[in-house]
Amino acid sequence: MIEHELVRELAEKNDSKIMMLVADGLGGLPMEPGGRTELETAATPNLDRLAARGTSGSSVPVLPGITPGSGPGHLGLFGYDPLEFKIGRGALEATGIGFELGPDDVAARGNFCTLDQQGRITDRRAGRIPSEESVRVVERLQAVQVPGVEVFVRPVKEHRFVVVFRAAGLSGAVADTDPQATGVPPLAPQPLAAAATRTAAVAAEFVARSRSLLADEPKANGMVLRGFAGRPALPSYEELYGLRAAAIAVYPMYKGLARLVGMTLVGEATTLAEQIAALRGCWQDYDFFFLHFKYTDSTGEDGAFDRKVGRIEELDAAIPAIEALGPRVLIVTGDHSTPSRLKSHSWHPVPTLLVADTCRPDGLTGFSERDCLRGGLGIFPAKHLMMMAMAHALRLGKYGA
Amino acid sequence: MIEHELVRELAEKNDSKIMMLVADGLGGLPMEPGGRTELETAATPNLDRLAARGTSGSSVPVLPGITPGSGPGHLGLFGYDPLEFKIGRGALEATGIGFELGPDDVAARGNFCTLDQQGRITDRRAGRIPSEESVRVVERLQAVQVPGVEVFVRPVKEHRFVVVFRAAGLSGAVADTDPQATGVPPLAPQPLAAAATRTAAVAAEFVARSRSLLADEPKANGMVLRGFAGRPALPSYEELYGLRAAAIAVYPMYKGLARLVGMTLVGEATTLAEQIAALRGCWQDYDFFFLHFKYTDSTGEDGAFDRKVGRIEELDAAIPAIEALGPRVLIVTGDHSTPSRLKSHSWHPVPTLLVADTCRPDGLTGFSERDCLRGGLGIFPAKHLMMMAMAHALRLGKYGA
Repeated sequence: MIEHELVRELAEKNDSKIMMLVADGLGGLPMEPGGRTELETAATPNLDRLAARGTSGSSVPVLPGITPGSGPGHLGLFGYDPLEFKIGRGALEATGIGFELGPDDVAARGNFCTLDQQGRITDRRAGRIPSEESVRVVERLQAVQVPGVEVFVRPVKEHRFVVVFRAAGLSGAVADTDPQATGVPPLAPQPLAAAATRTAAVAAEFVARSRSLLADEPKANGMVLRGFAGRPALPSYEELYGLRAAAIAVYPMYKGLARLVGMTLVGEATTLAEQIAALRGCWQDYDFFFLHFKYTDSTGEDGAFDRKVGRIEELDAAIPAIEALGPRVLIVTGDHSTPSRLKSHSWHPVPTLLVADTCRPDGLTGFSERDCLRGGLGIFPAKHLMMMAMAHALRLGKYGA
Repeated sequence: MIEHELVRELAEKNDSKIMMLVADGLGGLPMEPGGRTELETAATPNLDRLAARGTSGSSVPVLPGITPGSGPGHLGLFGYDPLEFKIGRGALEATGIGFELGPDDVAARGNFCTLDQQGRITDRRAGRIPSEESVRVVERLQAVQVPGVEVFVRPVKEHRFVVVFRAAGLSGAVADTDPQATGVPPLAPQPLAAAATRTAAVAAEFVARSRSLLADEPKANGMVLRGFAGRPALPSYEELYGLRAAAIAVYPMYKGLARLVGMTLVGEATTLAEQIAALRGCWQDYDFFFLHFKYTDSTGEDGAFDRKVGRIEELDAAIPAIEALGPRVLIVTGDHSTPSRLKSHSWHPVPTLLVADTCRPDGLTGFSERDCLRGGLGIFPAKHLMMMAMAHALRLGKYGA
């Protein structure tokens, strides 16, 4: 990224603090034509006041029309072009359950399946066995050993699990073993590059030994593996921006994403109040703070418009406590939109607010999708947000004389 | 740049005139929250009238958050991506003092320093000797000759000077000789590429001979050299746009930047009135006119809000005389923002106005940062301004059938 070259060249250090408050899935839609979005419906006196002081805009997570997952959504906010920096599915899945990937790890997502006597798949999801059941089977798999490799198996949910192979020289370039059909056996792990020959052999060995071990399982007696991937190569916040960064998140996925860019996980919060307390507790020790608020997304995913409105209001009420810490730059944004109407992530731009004393007034008096369209940040790629944050923190020098 | 490929392919000639009025550092900030910027404060009846006729927008000189120097700022306005086309520090310094770099020149910025008996630096800036003193020492250096090379030494300000080596086959890939510390001797000039071996030897010879000559100087008895660079390879306005371009600037830096893209320097103006007279005098002879107004930047750098307001009003008063010449396209913009509040260049977008009979009305009735946010040009990269100018001049043909 040319942006990274610039930032590396121009970054300077000072004692200013940058606060990034990410309301997951913040953007929304009206439930009916002519109606209001969740954010437009919510009473947000604090955000409105900030909008009058700061500069607003609409963040495009990846590209217009592209709906991001949590990985690309956050990478963009952190200043990594999500089209250039990719987190493989296995690595994201491991990250999402809080498994800390090391540099020698290759992770794959596993699905338990049911095989017949001839080894042919009869159910690609092992009857969607309940999570407790899956935990028990994964427990049995801890006994599987592959010579020369450390193996970690972790349950995810229902029939899904993660397997991580740890050894020097492994590679994520291994094809999925899911034939995407029943009546045929799982595919053998095939290397997609010469460097992955050993990894494919390791995976094949793991699958063979697992199959012997699980032969007596009524449903989960086989597996398919997908999305082999190592830890993505992401420059750290410290290296890129010269920022000591702290992350205050409740859910493993967001903790994992923050860890991948070198943020330090702070606190063991489970509520927003505890997150704010954790933030306050570490304020003197870091330059950058990522606080992740999950519930604007999960309520949107549930299609629970009113509950999402409530969660936005809960977030708004927390703003004064954050302001009181005195960040030089305060950002409120989301990693993507999650309109209750769609019950899913969407491609719509994300309302974004940047507050600093160096903001040029854009005449807004409220914070909402509609307001942001008239804001001074315009409609902008999420990957540029960190550069603006660095600029307003007076942490970027001049380019050229 | 894909834009240059397009422009080269599509450029057509006609007798229309394009006028670009650059108010250096035009964009600003309020001094206090809720206040007005310099441009919002200034009474600008002429610019407001033009805004009603034309299309406005906010120009981003380099990328969001990036504060440009004068070099990148102007290159963007001239249609050269400032991330692709770079002017090395030595070349910019030479340009800034009006030294016309040739294709065989390599320029470096020099700092006089003080050396002890053992040749170790005791003062990296030679006590910041006054400019008169520096002029005298530079005068002595005119006697230094290096076989096979023409050498030019020119004073800049205080302890700073420029040295230019002229010979076929020289290269700017030479490392700085400044050790960035005292107590150690200056570094020897090291080639950073094989092609620069001779240049490094030439520089070393120059330094050695200078040192003998200046041995009796009480303060400026040594030197360090930085930012070796040849003339940047910029396609000319004529070649790129098919435009005969004239530049009317007062200060050497802007004359130099214009010369680098092949503009002809016109007039010897020192006031805006004289600049307008020079413009009038050459109107029939050129297609494109760059008029540089310095004082919106220098007052901003001084933190002199009211004086910047006054300079904007002075510029506004000159508009009718420019309009009277009948340009097909009239642009008013800046190379970057220089808010009085920050007393420096900044990253904020630059209010920009393009007036032509082919403008689509955007409903604005005034020209200011806030107005421009609602303008038809949107928030756009500065490097695209020239393409829009060419289009409104009806000088760009259709792309594809």
